[in-house]
Amino acid sequence: MANGQGGPEIERLIGLLAKLPGLGPRSARRAALDLIKKRDRLMRPLAQALMDAANHITECENCGNLDACSPCNICAAPGRDQALICVVQDVSDLWAMERAAAFRGTYHVLGGTLSAIEGIRPEDLNIARLITRASRDGVSEIILAMNATVDGQTTAHYITDQLSGTGVSVSRLAHGVPVGGELDYLDDGTISAAMKSRRPF
Amino acid sequence: MANGQGGPEIERLIGLLAKLPGLGPRSARRAALDLIKKRDRLMRPLAQALMDAANHITECENCGNLDACSPCNICAAPGRDQALICVVQDVSDLWAMERAAAFRGTYHVLGGTLSAIEGIRPEDLNIARLITRASRDGVSEIILAMNATVDGQTTAHYITDQLSGTGVSVSRLAHGVPVGGELDYLDDGTISAAMKSRRPF
Repeated sequence: MANGQGGPEIERLIGLLAKLPGLGPRSARRAALDLIKKRDRLMRPLAQALMDAANHITECENCGNLDACSPCNICAAPGRDQALICVVQDVSDLWAMERAAAFRGTYHVLGGTLSAIEGIRPEDLNIARLITRASRDGVSEIILAMNATVDGQTTAHYITDQLSGTGVSVSRLAHGVPVGGELDYLDDGTISAAMKSRRPF
Repeated sequence: MANGQGGPEIERLIGLLAKLPGLGPRSARRAALDLIKKRDRLMRPLAQALMDAANHITECENCGNLDACSPCNICAAPGRDQALICVVQDVSDLWAMERAAAFRGTYHVLGGTLSAIEGIRPEDLNIARLITRASRDGVSEIILAMNATVDGQTTAHYITDQLSGTGVSVSRLAHGVPVGGELDYLDDGTISAAMKSRRPF
């Protein structure tokens, strides 16, 4: 009863909920009470879903995506173009690409970016496997979809260098004005990039 | 793969996480990935904690608090003054009182407030049991600690009426300037209340 929160069971639940990104101690308490109120509708199903995911989700041996099978459902899908590989930093970026539904090739998840400050080296990322895939699978194009940050672009340059011997063409996502974006709110770099890459109307 | 989120296991987990108060779809996705990364440190323990709480947490038959036993650890504690009952709206308010450690009596959790708009009547709240406790237990004082809202104060008036036959004295929390509060940011009602209840210095 150190914090007066209904015994060790609830204290422990709140402590664990508070470790989730986006939940602090206050929202963890609110979530715990809400869960107890919705015991059969939410609490037990969530416990079960967590256990199921912990037991079944694995990293795809081919691309690094998370799925219940390896190779993952994207790598194994017959409708996917195996000649195209879109390289992303994290699984969340893969999900974002899939939500946009603008790509029907396969992916390669690096698991982060190179970072001198955080000491992340090429061998810490899923890069060697990408080079192997690029040399082997009849791959025609590798699309680099890293974030437009310094670390993301450093990683893109490194991968381009590594791929130079394979003969595979390497592209990157276009820079420009976001759809629905207002010029007045955009940074100078984006406006410059959009101007440089302007297209006939 | 409707939203491209790694198969039904992850989709289901994200869907349930998104139902927690404080987590939207985006933060639920982030939480799911974080949980998968911390499978043994966070994901399995959280599943276990949820299941434990779902199986063991119950409402105290005496006061309405949530605990693994009934009567709860506060009602059963020998050091607690059974003559004092602090009436709160919800368990979260009980927790807040306990964190402040300013009260060593017992509690009574109403489970909400009367509300004409939401159609919450006295019989929907844990009020009858409070009247029984007040008449029976050698109770000397009932402290009404409802929120300082219209519904909270309506509920406080209703309970005071119901308790009028019992001879138990009824008090409420003081209104005034919050500790650390700046006058300039306070509403007029609070300043008026603080002025009316001023104390010798």
